Amino acid sequence: MTTKTSKPEHPLKAVGEFGLISKIQTWFDEPTSDLLGIGDDCTVIPREDDRLDLITTDMLIEETHFLLDKIEPEDLGHKSLAVNLSDIAAMGGTPEYAWLSIGLTEKNDIGWLEQFFSGMKDLAKQHGVRLLGGDTTRSQKHMVINILVSGKTNSPGLKLRSSARVGDIVFVTGMLGDSGAGLQLLLNNQFPGESPAEQKLIKAHNRPDPCVIQGQWLGGQSAVHALIDVSDGIASDAGHIAARSGLGIDLELTKLPVSNELTEISGKYGWSAIDLACSAGEDYVLLGTCSPSEFDGICESYRKAFPDDGPSGGNHPEPDLFPIGYVRKHDEQRPPVRFLQDGSPAPYGSRGFDHFKV
Amino acid sequence: MTTKTSKPEHPLKAVGEFGLISKIQTWFDEPTSDLLGIGDDCTVIPREDDRLDLITTDMLIEETHFLLDKIEPEDLGHKSLAVNLSDIAAMGGTPEYAWLSIGLTEKNDIGWLEQFFSGMKDLAKQHGVRLLGGDTTRSQKHMVINILVSGKTNSPGLKLRSSARVGDIVFVTGMLGDSGAGLQLLLNNQFPGESPAEQKLIKAHNRPDPCVIQGQWLGGQSAVHALIDVSDGIASDAGHIAARSGLGIDLELTKLPVSNELTEISGKYGWSAIDLACSAGEDYVLLGTCSPSEFDGICESYRKAFPDDGPSGGNHPEPDLFPIGYVRKHDEQRPPVRFLQDGSPAPYGSRGFDHFKV
Repeated sequence: MTTKTSKPEHPLKAVGEFGLISKIQTWFDEPTSDLLGIGDDCTVIPREDDRLDLITTDMLIEETHFLLDKIEPEDLGHKSLAVNLSDIAAMGGTPEYAWLSIGLTEKNDIGWLEQFFSGMKDLAKQHGVRLLGGDTTRSQKHMVINILVSGKTNSPGLKLRSSARVGDIVFVTGMLGDSGAGLQLLLNNQFPGESPAEQKLIKAHNRPDPCVIQGQWLGGQSAVHALIDVSDGIASDAGHIAARSGLGIDLELTKLPVSNELTEISGKYGWSAIDLACSAGEDYVLLGTCSPSEFDGICESYRKAFPDDGPSGGNHPEPDLFPIGYVRKHDEQRPPVRFLQDGSPAPYGSRGFDHFKV
Repeated sequence: MTTKTSKPEHPLKAVGEFGLISKIQTWFDEPTSDLLGIGDDCTVIPREDDRLDLITTDMLIEETHFLLDKIEPEDLGHKSLAVNLSDIAAMGGTPEYAWLSIGLTEKNDIGWLEQFFSGMKDLAKQHGVRLLGGDTTRSQKHMVINILVSGKTNSPGLKLRSSARVGDIVFVTGMLGDSGAGLQLLLNNQFPGESPAEQKLIKAHNRPDPCVIQGQWLGGQSAVHALIDVSDGIASDAGHIAARSGLGIDLELTKLPVSNELTEISGKYGWSAIDLACSAGEDYVLLGTCSPSEFDGICESYRKAFPDDGPSGGNHPEPDLFPIGYVRKHDEQRPPVRFLQDGSPAPYGSRGFDHFKV
């Protein structure tokens, strides 16, 4: 017998988070013809007729994903559900049911919990999601929230990461980098934010609006091929589409949609707005690819379908599909995702645009 | 705005775990005619034809539910899935798919994780359960495991806590108290146990065998009415059947099945074997109620169906249905669950049989 709490021989940080996920994926059951298994935003289980069940789950842990004194309980309840609804949206699906497991510490009193549930239930109601049950338990040190959401779509409506095609236009459904800037403000102890701009960026981080109705709408468009939600940041999420489609993606830096608030606050603190837009993640907009010949028509229909910020567009006041790049063939000589400025590769590295100030 | 980390005004411990669960239940969506909602071992969702989907989820947190230096990683992987399979069994169902969310600390190295997954996958394979995906994340302090299992049954096979009838015989499918004694040994730093008896009790706690095939079999018997798994302890779990059926239950102390190992080790350390059998929980045997006129016939068929300890009977070497009491009408003058000795009430209180040594 070994002592399990000894110093790790193969510590996780040597493998990295994506290395670890790849490793763990090999321990799960193989996707088969009747199931699409893991590796996309949701598990897909075919049911009767043309119905497909979608399942997704996300775990949020205090100190890793949130700090209790830097988020309102209503917002944490909202966000915990939102990140799962975003995964259903990214498959072109409709969410139906949710299950919550929650590990509570002494810091979570009844009043706090009532507000937490209020935030979660308001979002659930907005999208017709029924909160059906789960598990309540005690945690000694940090609060833990795990939500699983099930939903549905059908075969024509299903949007996979692996469906991008060469020549597709790459688009996003909203602003990039706001959430990352909000996180930076929280880490700098700016909660709840001095100015309206700071408050809006913090809200983008603490209370993201999942693009549920947008995802359903995009699911109904045959010209939209691949779809994913922006949780890790577009550098990473575009990389998931590229990898699973066996293709490459070029993104044009000047086309990334950046909010006035992000520009203002980046100027105030000397941050790179473009770095945040490319890599910060947690914006929970959708990132998709679309047949180039049909993109203009799709954009026009999209603007008509979402004439204002609508029921779930609070963080996305200018509903639009923003073209930000193209899908190309995979090429061993180039990274799977390249950032271009005026057609030339921009020096984006693992630490962002170290030599590229915007 | 309130400071969320201030001293709780209504601390959770003043409400208690079951009080908290009752409170939280009021925040979930109401069960409706098309769904049975929460309050049983699983959520039940009717699908096409006669099919019913079953969903259950359980969260295990380090220091609350397990200590990393007192359980083998294979056993923790096994147990994390087993407690969920037990809930499916308690509905008379067949498990199909599992999703795992896992929060890892620096103590969980790759070797540890391989063994953890090995234990979980062996149990999944044994019961034909496919591990489809989940979420992998970092936890700063304590490891967190959340598993959700989905399964199926049909209307005649569904066994609810609310279906007990007056006069029913109350039975269990295996020994009581072994897991509680195993936990006591672990808390006394006896891991992995000096003697074979101690090792067996620790195994009952660290590696419980869910009664999946027994639950499926009982699901096929129309004379079996209510069913639950023994997770909280029979005092509590029989109480769940009594409460949801609107009835009372009398249990005869001398009929509780207690293993030779529990008797031996209780004698060695001066524990009350009966206290452990009544209240300790986590035995993950099934507790059911059966029409009295058909009980003998059901027992005979059960022994034929499970002639030896079978694929999931490792902790239940003498497969049998052990009658331990009766369902009676609810009576305001009596507690919902009473323990009797030779027909007279035994003085069982919130701290067990304080004045009743066996």
